[in-house]
Amino acid sequence: MHKPKNKNHLLKIDRLLAFSDGVLAIAITLLILEIKIPKHDDIVHAGGLYNYLYNIWPSYLSYLVSFLVIGIYWSNHHWLFTFIHHTNHIFNLIHIFFLMAVCFLPFTSAILGDYILDPDFKNAATTAYCVGFALPIIPLIILFFYAFHKHRLVGLNLNRKFMNRQIVKLFSGLFLTIIALGVSFYHAFAALAIIGLGILIYLLPPDVPIYDEEKIND
Amino acid sequence: MHKPKNKNHLLKIDRLLAFSDGVLAIAITLLILEIKIPKHDDIVHAGGLYNYLYNIWPSYLSYLVSFLVIGIYWSNHHWLFTFIHHTNHIFNLIHIFFLMAVCFLPFTSAILGDYILDPDFKNAATTAYCVGFALPIIPLIILFFYAFHKHRLVGLNLNRKFMNRQIVKLFSGLFLTIIALGVSFYHAFAALAIIGLGILIYLLPPDVPIYDEEKIND
Amino acid sequence: MHKPKNKNHLLKIDRLLAFSDGVLAIAITLLILEIKIPKHDDIVHAGGLYNYLYNIWPSYLSYLVSFLVIGIYWSNHHWLFTFIHHTNHIFNLIHIFFLMAVCFLPFTSAILGDYILDPDFKNAATTAYCVGFALPIIPLIILFFYAFHKHRLVGLNLNRKFMNRQIVKLFSGLFLTIIALGVSFYHAFAALAIIGLGILIYLLPPDVPIYDEEKIND
Amino acid sequence: MHKPKNKNHLLKIDRLLAFSDGVLAIAITLLILEIKIPKHDDIVHAGGLYNYLYNIWPSYLSYLVSFLVIGIYWSNHHWLFTFIHHTNHIFNLIHIFFLMAVCFLPFTSAILGDYILDPDFKNAATTAYCVGFALPIIPLIILFFYAFHKHRLVGLNLNRKFMNRQIVKLFSGLFLTIIALGVSFYHAFAALAIIGLGILIYLLPPDVPIYDEEKIND
Repeated sequence: MHKPKNKNHLLKIDRLLAFSDGVLAIAITLLILEIKIPKHDDIVHAGGLYNYLYNIWPSYLSYLVSFLVIGIYWSNHHWLFTFIHHTNHIFNLIHIFFLMAVCFLPFTSAILGDYILDPDFKNAATTAYCVGFALPIIPLIILFFYAFHKHRLVGLNLNRKFMNRQIVKLFSGLFLTIIALGVSFYHAFAALAIIGLGILIYLLPPDVPIYDEEKIND
Repeated sequence: MHKPKNKNHLLKIDRLLAFSDGVLAIAITLLILEIKIPKHDDIVHAGGLYNYLYNIWPSYLSYLVSFLVIGIYWSNHHWLFTFIHHTNHIFNLIHIFFLMAVCFLPFTSAILGDYILDPDFKNAATTAYCVGFALPIIPLIILFFYAFHKHRLVGLNLNRKFMNRQIVKLFSGLFLTIIALGVSFYHAFAALAIIGLGILIYLLPPDVPIYDEEKIND
Repeated sequence: MHKPKNKNHLLKIDRLLAFSDGVLAIAITLLILEIKIPKHDDIVHAGGLYNYLYNIWPSYLSYLVSFLVIGIYWSNHHWLFTFIHHTNHIFNLIHIFFLMAVCFLPFTSAILGDYILDPDFKNAATTAYCVGFALPIIPLIILFFYAFHKHRLVGLNLNRKFMNRQIVKLFSGLFLTIIALGVSFYHAFAALAIIGLGILIYLLPPDVPIYDEEKIND
Repeated sequence: MHKPKNKNHLLKIDRLLAFSDGVLAIAITLLILEIKIPKHDDIVHAGGLYNYLYNIWPSYLSYLVSFLVIGIYWSNHHWLFTFIHHTNHIFNLIHIFFLMAVCFLPFTSAILGDYILDPDFKNAATTAYCVGFALPIIPLIILFFYAFHKHRLVGLNLNRKFMNRQIVKLFSGLFLTIIALGVSFYHAFAALAIIGLGILIYLLPPDVPIYDEEKIND
């Protein structure tokens, strides 16, 4: 009888990718449901359908930004798994928390779209958005630490400096978002400007993985 | 002419996995739709958007727990199909009942999130949640029995004790959930504590499949 | 320069399958959204949450039946593409109509669940359900004719009698559904009994493809 | 240490396809959610459920047309990636804008279905629909330019005239849609007739890729 040595053995990555692609695809597509189809009364109240469609421009903007944010998360996820080729039970669990945080974005995004122009609630709406923006970064940092530790889930020749730089980048992103979060209690638009800066940085292509000379099969 | 001997012939597993990944990905992502975007009146009634967002904490908790539960089901599904490599028409049908039960979770989860703090309805909300939690276990037990019987859909050298242990574990989970269900009629929070214990046990990594020495190709 | 002879050239089937699995997975999962989360007033009106959850049993039944129906469509789709290995532009287009009809099922299913117990509207609700049930069969018949004609998209040695039997079966299903549709204007439950019979027949495993002796590669 | 020369290196296309199939599958399936399940009052107001279901025929038409439009986008996407075999970070980003525009269609489609029969709002509803119809064409043109430029993401022997013809076709489609958009401010149905013509043209099979004689592996 073959006794397994290790309960937390390696699994192929394919279904984690299929599941993630599914979840991210749905989260990104649900964003459109947050732009409400107007009822007859809404249109009359706005003074016509043209006016109505013009007045809800913050919803379009929120849709655009949130679609871009989840799209960038997908794109970076794509990149991440060009150098992580296996998973295990613990990595799966942490990864579920990452997806949980990304799927929360349509909620905070809808609140932002609905209340950013409301003087009473715009700060709270922005705070909610900043929290939603910060949440996925935390499990992502844990995922990186877990996968990189002793080259647990990456090739043995993946460059250490490359790995450290990725962790530093994520902490920088988290730090920027926490600043935005603090600012949001006082100045909604200043906070959003910081978030916008973060998104612009995210738009840059991620680092190409660097491997050390001595090739070792993984 | 090739006459088929058996109407219930084996099918490749790939599309069952793709379909399951899709259904589970959608069920898990729909959970966020159960956290309602506040209307203006809701916010005024709560005394501001900060208050509103704070007051709905049971919805966040329900989201977190239900996301975790479906996530664990996905993770265990992933594990299950590391040793089940084929399907047939009957297995497909039982599997549809499993997915049907998992997709019911967002409904009972939303009821729990909305009414757990309501003294009049918290027991009923918890009962509903316990039913939702128990439902997927039943088709899962049938799936295991069907696949393991005479090694119908697993390798011929998959260890019998390993298979029996999986069945025992599922019955234990069902038993625990039925106790929680009974308790829920009297003490909502005691029932939820039992469910919480069940989730903690589920978080443990599943058993690594054990194969007997004499290798037989499947 | 390579001049293509035929504008309607063969395409690999993989993305049609991925897209179909996605659409069917979403359509089946959306069914749960048709079971409404009760508002506080609904519960008070029903005399408590236990009563409410009991009273909406037609919604559960409608969920169960519709999940099963879409699940069987998926299962038969799975089977269909064990002997159709290619597609082309026209087949893609007909296939889109098939998916369009399947995605319509959650709408008619929700109407049935909401109004089957309402004496005034139960016939109309059943008529709607029968229409929804009949719709996917029509593009399916066209798909079969198109794929089978001169063995256009199936192996050259796929048995002609086998192909004819599939067409006959689909026409029988359509005929049964049209009878149910006619009956639904007068007796809702008699019509549903006919539909139920049709579902039971669908639950039987589909025919195993039969190939003629002379093997020809496709 | 292997120093990467180029930060924007090529990535495999498989996950972009999986993500796109997911997003398009969800966008197409969400269309059914725009056909509202009637409440009891709606039915009474319409004079019965049969009347209600008859009266909402513009919603069925809008569902049919929008399903077809997204289906054709999927089909053309399928075709596009028979000659684009790689992606990179920038192509991924442009592609996200394409998906963003396609996912906007259920919103404008629902508005059209709800207000096309309303004399006051039918023009605005049609304008919205034309905008929704035009939006995906713009990132698609950019995608083609980007992929074709110096054969960046296509085989080196892909015929130049073939590539130019695709760009011309897209610009023609955009031009036609802009005319419809202009007309929509004055004559809703004339604008929709132009859109309908565009859809009919889209239904034609796309060009088969043409490769120049000297074969070069890509």
